Amino acid sequence: MVAASRSALARPYRGVFPVVPTIFHDDGSLDLEGQKRAIDFMIDAGSNGLCILANYSEQFVLSDAEREILTDLALKHVAGRVPVIVTTTHYSTAICVERCRMAEALGAAMVMIMPPYHGATIRVGEAGVYEFFKTVSDAINIPIMIQDAPVSGTPLSGEFLARMAQEIKNVSYFKIETAGAAAKLRALIAASGTGVEGPWDGEEGITLMADLDAGATGSMTGGGYPDGFRQILDPWFAGDRAKARAAYAHWLPLINWENRQCGLAAAKILMQEGGIIGSDRLRLPQRPVDVEARKGLLELARERDVLALRWGR
Amino acid sequence: MVAASRSALARPYRGVFPVVPTIFHDDGSLDLEGQKRAIDFMIDAGSNGLCILANYSEQFVLSDAEREILTDLALKHVAGRVPVIVTTTHYSTAICVERCRMAEALGAAMVMIMPPYHGATIRVGEAGVYEFFKTVSDAINIPIMIQDAPVSGTPLSGEFLARMAQEIKNVSYFKIETAGAAAKLRALIAASGTGVEGPWDGEEGITLMADLDAGATGSMTGGGYPDGFRQILDPWFAGDRAKARAAYAHWLPLINWENRQCGLAAAKILMQEGGIIGSDRLRLPQRPVDVEARKGLLELARERDVLALRWGR
Repeated sequence: MVAASRSALARPYRGVFPVVPTIFHDDGSLDLEGQKRAIDFMIDAGSNGLCILANYSEQFVLSDAEREILTDLALKHVAGRVPVIVTTTHYSTAICVERCRMAEALGAAMVMIMPPYHGATIRVGEAGVYEFFKTVSDAINIPIMIQDAPVSGTPLSGEFLARMAQEIKNVSYFKIETAGAAAKLRALIAASGTGVEGPWDGEEGITLMADLDAGATGSMTGGGYPDGFRQILDPWFAGDRAKARAAYAHWLPLINWENRQCGLAAAKILMQEGGIIGSDRLRLPQRPVDVEARKGLLELARERDVLALRWGR
Repeated sequence: MVAASRSALARPYRGVFPVVPTIFHDDGSLDLEGQKRAIDFMIDAGSNGLCILANYSEQFVLSDAEREILTDLALKHVAGRVPVIVTTTHYSTAICVERCRMAEALGAAMVMIMPPYHGATIRVGEAGVYEFFKTVSDAINIPIMIQDAPVSGTPLSGEFLARMAQEIKNVSYFKIETAGAAAKLRALIAASGTGVEGPWDGEEGITLMADLDAGATGSMTGGGYPDGFRQILDPWFAGDRAKARAAYAHWLPLINWENRQCGLAAAKILMQEGGIIGSDRLRLPQRPVDVEARKGLLELARERDVLALRWGR
């Protein structure tokens, strides 16, 4: 287990906030017991916080009712051990507001939201994005993390994000995982004054070192090896950049394999192989990861002695 | 009122099957009484059938619970007067299956489904699309219309569609509204033998004449002026191509205005202006149509004496 070095619940939140995968049985139904074990492992592995219902949680294969079940389960089961971010993205402003209010009522520390998008073509433009986040912010009292990711197909400049940080009360965290994340983090931090409480990165931490150098204070990674990210972030927060860089170089082959070969299956593969969960199944139409990609992931994970392969044994 | 020239419930379904807009009050909540009046108008205006929960129904701003309410309401209120197609698109195979089963149980004539997609980037490839439709088909006993639209960001060749028509039992209708629809309809019809029960077009009927010449037997248009489309389709089905072409030329300025200036708001504007519904509001983050675009639509609609502007008075 990795000890927390400061109160995990103190703001500003910082550190590694991995995405909790949604755990299914082999038949594709929710595995709620496995879900709890995945959460317990992730906390024991040193997560400074958790994020549920993100894209790496396969949020796009869940019904509204399942989202509610999972939100309720995660917040009750975590029970304040670490802060929990709940993803509440929906194209409809009103439905997003409703999801945010429910998350707040159940004890979420923060909500994470992408700008409204649907499919390949339906977008709302900058004025619509601004109005969307303003309306959501006015409805709640916890911070909003804007997720800037390619899947939304919505360009968000550093300057526009900074303006929302300054003008919209609860917009204060940013997960930047578009191309050029480090440069955008710099632009955002430079333009926003005190509005940005948390300039973070995401995308499995694949650009973490550049992003830390740019001013990132948190990273939303995959859920398989928070212990690895703590080995990078603990020295970084202690001011030891050289040690952080060496640790990043050590973990990078595994991070890269997750980012490019296994994607959202990586965390589940590690947890299943380690006996934490019974099935690493993705819900259809997502197909299982290629056998060789799975082997490569486990090889890299064993070399690094990840906790996921030991915790459940 | 436009009289039906043959039993509307006989297969193969053909003619104009417009999309029913989802009707909201000014506060964004569902207007179920307005919804029923919109449906009654659309049937009286000559719709050969209806489609609910499509993109022009703003399906992307609805919760799962609202979809159920609207499906139940539409099928009960239509009560067999015309066949109803229910859109059941979801990225999750299992959730799409569940929606299809519910639609069938409630009396849907057909389900319309896009290949699985999420956002700008998440796609499953041809093998995944095939497996998705095969799984859905195996779970139901009514025809499936595959919707081939740009919003899904998933290229579907005419040959691939034809293969699914031949090999997957219930895949038998196709709504082609991607660029080059006429050519794709020809390729689909040529390659599919008897598998294609309904090669249709969509996209507000903007390419209807070219698509009819290519073999289309149905069109899924906007909901504002089914009476106009009947003026094109009735002579077409009676074998009078010249009269159909003249009618298409007459209606094209309005179709074009809907397609390029007003989009999914057009049907609601006409129904609201005609007193059929109380509010033409789109649900946020969709913004109201520009005032000049609204004026231009009404000018073209009045010139053509559309029923929507008279039916509710």
